[in-house]
Amino acid sequence: MDVAAHLAGRARQVEAALDRLVPPADASPARLHEALRYSLEAGGKRLRPALVMDGCVAVGGSPEAVLPTACALECVHTYSLIHDDLPCMDDDDLRRGRPSCHKQFDEATALLAGDALLTLAFELVARNADEPGIDAARALAASRELAVQAGAAGMVGGQALDLQSEGQTPTAELVAAIHTGKTVALITAAVVCGALLGGAHAEQVASLRRYARGLGLAFQIADDILDVVGDEATLGKPVGSDADHAKATWPVLFGLDESRRQAAALVDEAVAALNDFGPAADPLRALARYVIERDH
Amino acid sequence: MDVAAHLAGRARQVEAALDRLVPPADASPARLHEALRYSLEAGGKRLRPALVMDGCVAVGGSPEAVLPTACALECVHTYSLIHDDLPCMDDDDLRRGRPSCHKQFDEATALLAGDALLTLAFELVARNADEPGIDAARALAASRELAVQAGAAGMVGGQALDLQSEGQTPTAELVAAIHTGKTVALITAAVVCGALLGGAHAEQVASLRRYARGLGLAFQIADDILDVVGDEATLGKPVGSDADHAKATWPVLFGLDESRRQAAALVDEAVAALNDFGPAADPLRALARYVIERDH
Repeated sequence: MDVAAHLAGRARQVEAALDRLVPPADASPARLHEALRYSLEAGGKRLRPALVMDGCVAVGGSPEAVLPTACALECVHTYSLIHDDLPCMDDDDLRRGRPSCHKQFDEATALLAGDALLTLAFELVARNADEPGIDAARALAASRELAVQAGAAGMVGGQALDLQSEGQTPTAELVAAIHTGKTVALITAAVVCGALLGGAHAEQVASLRRYARGLGLAFQIADDILDVVGDEATLGKPVGSDADHAKATWPVLFGLDESRRQAAALVDEAVAALNDFGPAADPLRALARYVIERDH
Repeated sequence: MDVAAHLAGRARQVEAALDRLVPPADASPARLHEALRYSLEAGGKRLRPALVMDGCVAVGGSPEAVLPTACALECVHTYSLIHDDLPCMDDDDLRRGRPSCHKQFDEATALLAGDALLTLAFELVARNADEPGIDAARALAASRELAVQAGAAGMVGGQALDLQSEGQTPTAELVAAIHTGKTVALITAAVVCGALLGGAHAEQVASLRRYARGLGLAFQIADDILDVVGDEATLGKPVGSDADHAKATWPVLFGLDESRRQAAALVDEAVAALNDFGPAADPLRALARYVIERDH
């Protein structure tokens, strides 16, 4: 399958749904809603929403029925970027080639826009129970999965561990723990929420967690590699910014070649985790291969 | 009924439940969990969790069955205080007589502790479906209510409106809109979540929304009054701090006497909204009267 075309199609569906489900930029208070939409509409690959939809497809569900939760994952991802860019965190002035939220607006508005997006995510997951075939039990299971993976035991925990470890000599264990929190957790939430909404049974969920771990780690290693070799114009952020902050990354630990080898092995593990799934899981297989081949 | 004793009893139940349901301070990453518990354990009246429990009691439910959601409301309230105290917001060094979270730890940790608490709140509401008598549909309805009231259309919206209006000449309409967002929204979520978990029907929910509006506005007016006349030692924060920031408050608009009269009228409206409820709503009635009589 043409995975770039598939992902672009999913992105169009998700962007139309975001436009429908997120309050308009002129809703009161206007500055908050402008900031929220500014960051949501900044683009990106929309990988996490695609994983929600294709996680649902993998267990026989309808991708359109989970669009509210797909949008919720994009809200959580976007909030994490807004807060991550703040001066007290990474202090990044640019995001996807445009001024980051607190540069375009101000710090307080960026803080609140992030808070609002995180809250909106849980509203959207709850509203997903209004879609055909999605009952309250499935939506509640998805909400719980999202909360666990996005919180102190998952994504926020990964950010905190990253902060807490600055200046320490990085070990493979530490870097893996940071990546697991910062990246694997939300990717797991995406795939598993989609599957839970589609009616997955426990064994399928366990397999999809293994898939998401392989995919998520490979994705983050590929990101670390791109940060070393990427081109500033392609990425829309200063190349080498992680190294400037003396952050622990895979290439720093293992070198570029070994990092590439490990990322490929992790993608193989991800695809192997889908052995009991039929052709319905082909989009997930293709997305796993895509994340280490992309150039941005 | 002795409302102070009732509220103290609820606070003990909630604090025991928080200790059981929130990860320990030494969970990894430790600094994040320390910060999160530091702020949660700073005390306060635990009014919102009490309203969850007594909102459930008012419709015939068990107060103990909704303890996870009662804790969730305290998590959302605590996160809002942590983010509100940050330098880019109110820049307050003290909270409840102790250093605020970003002074005790650092800004990045305070930002993440707030994010983690907001996320944990939705995990706790989802986990409430594990309690006897609470099904997924009720828990999901509570989760949706909390998200709507805590987000851009509610509490976060109120914070943004407050920021956006600084320096403007305050009107009664504007101040009421700010109070509705910053205070009424979360108090509404508390009462209504408790009632939804207890199996409230639509008419009961509508009455409880009117109750929460009266209670919430009266509570905020009483808070504004305490800020003018209160004693620094009793409140644990610098008296007059709102006036220093030229923020719009009820006493600035109407004077102290008229503010007191309006707060009392709002409490009467709140109690009148409970006319169709029997003695099971007595704790809610007592709490409404209490909020304008308290001295801290």
